[in-house]
Amino acid sequence: MTEADVAASSLDHFWAVIPAGGAGTRLWPLSRAAAPKFLHDLTGSGRTLIQATVDRLVPLVAERVLVVTGASHRDAVVAQLPEVDEAGVVGEPSPRDSMAAIGLAAAMLELRDPDAVMGSFAADHVITDPQTFRAVVTRAAAAAREGWLVTIGIEPTHPATGFGYIAVGDPLPGLDETFAVREFVEKPAADVAARYVEDGYRWNAGMFVARPGVILDLLAGEDPDFARALRGIAAAPETLEEAWSTLPRIAVDHAVAEPAAAAGRVAVVPGSFGWDDIGDFASLETLLRSAGGLTVLGDPELVRTLDASGLVVPSAGRVVAVVGLEDVVVVDTGDALLVTTRERAQDVKAVVAALKEGAHHGLT
Amino acid sequence: MTEADVAASSLDHFWAVIPAGGAGTRLWPLSRAAAPKFLHDLTGSGRTLIQATVDRLVPLVAERVLVVTGASHRDAVVAQLPEVDEAGVVGEPSPRDSMAAIGLAAAMLELRDPDAVMGSFAADHVITDPQTFRAVVTRAAAAAREGWLVTIGIEPTHPATGFGYIAVGDPLPGLDETFAVREFVEKPAADVAARYVEDGYRWNAGMFVARPGVILDLLAGEDPDFARALRGIAAAPETLEEAWSTLPRIAVDHAVAEPAAAAGRVAVVPGSFGWDDIGDFASLETLLRSAGGLTVLGDPELVRTLDASGLVVPSAGRVVAVVGLEDVVVVDTGDALLVTTRERAQDVKAVVAALKEGAHHGLT
Repeated sequence: MTEADVAASSLDHFWAVIPAGGAGTRLWPLSRAAAPKFLHDLTGSGRTLIQATVDRLVPLVAERVLVVTGASHRDAVVAQLPEVDEAGVVGEPSPRDSMAAIGLAAAMLELRDPDAVMGSFAADHVITDPQTFRAVVTRAAAAAREGWLVTIGIEPTHPATGFGYIAVGDPLPGLDETFAVREFVEKPAADVAARYVEDGYRWNAGMFVARPGVILDLLAGEDPDFARALRGIAAAPETLEEAWSTLPRIAVDHAVAEPAAAAGRVAVVPGSFGWDDIGDFASLETLLRSAGGLTVLGDPELVRTLDASGLVVPSAGRVVAVVGLEDVVVVDTGDALLVTTRERAQDVKAVVAALKEGAHHGLT
Repeated sequence: MTEADVAASSLDHFWAVIPAGGAGTRLWPLSRAAAPKFLHDLTGSGRTLIQATVDRLVPLVAERVLVVTGASHRDAVVAQLPEVDEAGVVGEPSPRDSMAAIGLAAAMLELRDPDAVMGSFAADHVITDPQTFRAVVTRAAAAAREGWLVTIGIEPTHPATGFGYIAVGDPLPGLDETFAVREFVEKPAADVAARYVEDGYRWNAGMFVARPGVILDLLAGEDPDFARALRGIAAAPETLEEAWSTLPRIAVDHAVAEPAAAAGRVAVVPGSFGWDDIGDFASLETLLRSAGGLTVLGDPELVRTLDASGLVVPSAGRVVAVVGLEDVVVVDTGDALLVTTRERAQDVKAVVAALKEGAHHGLT
């Protein structure tokens, strides 16, 4: 079967849910609270991260897309995604973490399409091989239809300490390349990460595929009020504003995935399709790096270097000259400039925190 | 006698000549061909370099100031120096090196004030102790009145390889702390510089004090046509445009000072008053450096750092964040940004040369 045939045959009720939240503080000054990571073209592809996310899912879901984002970003998301029905872009009145966002989408889909299977994929991740990604998701959707909460287990490329891991168990009979999940484990220390990789653990990229009712019933088993509130909002959308603020702030991993794994209800489909969550400028540089010493995100004509390597982002349209610095990171925007190194890319967060408290909080 | 008394008694006919030329390429992007170094406040004093140059000479010369600058910079100079008579700002039709600029000033003064003694001081040097500077210049003016070509010999603070040196000879009888010059020597290699410093050589800062006729007669001894042409322009200012392009391009040091020293006609007054020619951002950083690790030229509120040292110039008014870089140089202007290190500050020149040849030559 071709990819199109697979989509047509088994994905008629498959929905993409795209939680679009998080400021991406470690990508300041490109990413801001007012214009977070997912609204930017961080790969120089000509598409923003949320546009690329939708692009890679459209062959599976056609118009069946639901985006859940901050109310203040709703207009920008609608503008960036003309192919998504405006009613399919839900604005959260306030940030309430991923369980509320994904749970609300589940409750809406449960009402709208009784045969729905949903896959939740963050708006700000990068995937370099979308075709393999779609094949893996299609496999996950088949398992989800059987009632499993399915996660995608990314094949580690190195012993990362910035991601949680998935312990893979036995193959599930009757399902293609699908395994039981023994447990989810938190971000490990370096030595533990190395052991995980050796033992065949997978990265947890926070992708979940399931029937909406499965997600909500699993949640109901842990926190019945929470599940009831979400279903209530879906049934009476006019109550969203008032009911939202009462919802618990909790990640879907803790609220549902971890207890479900302990109960043997979670499956994992392994995948290897060039995934990155672009956590900071060092990982962005790794992602974009070409043969040469210096990577430019933007117009290379604006960048002049001598004995320099690293990442330069000339997004203010000004000329940027770098002389005699290795593994440097220079991010030039209209109102703020960052100069750091690959090694210290994580520490950008601290500068943003300091700016938030000072006279320049508007820049964060 | 007080400083004011000295000025009143012996400096009635003392004139300041200020050659204002040179792009200051190694201070790009602050300094540009269109807005060279001397037009900028590089010390954060609130005065540009040329303003500070005039400020420190006014107690000696009052309104007796002659500036020779590029025709394209004349308006900017006039605007920056409201206290200088507009007729005292001469625009060179094209760059013709320092002999033409200083020689033209000498020819103009020879006509205007037969008792004149002139001192020539570059527009883009920094002096941290102007009072001592004036005492030294006053001594030089006294020797100049006696017919000497007098230079100021700066006490070296380190064995610099970027300056020429002056070999100091015997004291001149009847003149206060004034010595014969044995010879001028070119910029030395490091080991030679160390020997010079040990042997009591002085830095040649290009400051010359003399009667205008002495300078022109010395020039006439080497190149009679050149001296005649300068005197001709002074007598018929309307010929400037046409005559200027025929003048030789030569530095005053080679045209006059070196041959005069060989002939025993040059005196030196030693001085120690915190002099710097701000050759690049490393020397600017040294000049401005305070106790802390990071020097800011501009509004410190705009700069946020974490584990950083060096120089930041936030002259575009944007926030500049620097994380994890030692001895870095970050110069942020409205249309161009430079990121380099103290160590590589000299190499900025190469980047500017490359820009000159490309699409962004307008930025140089």
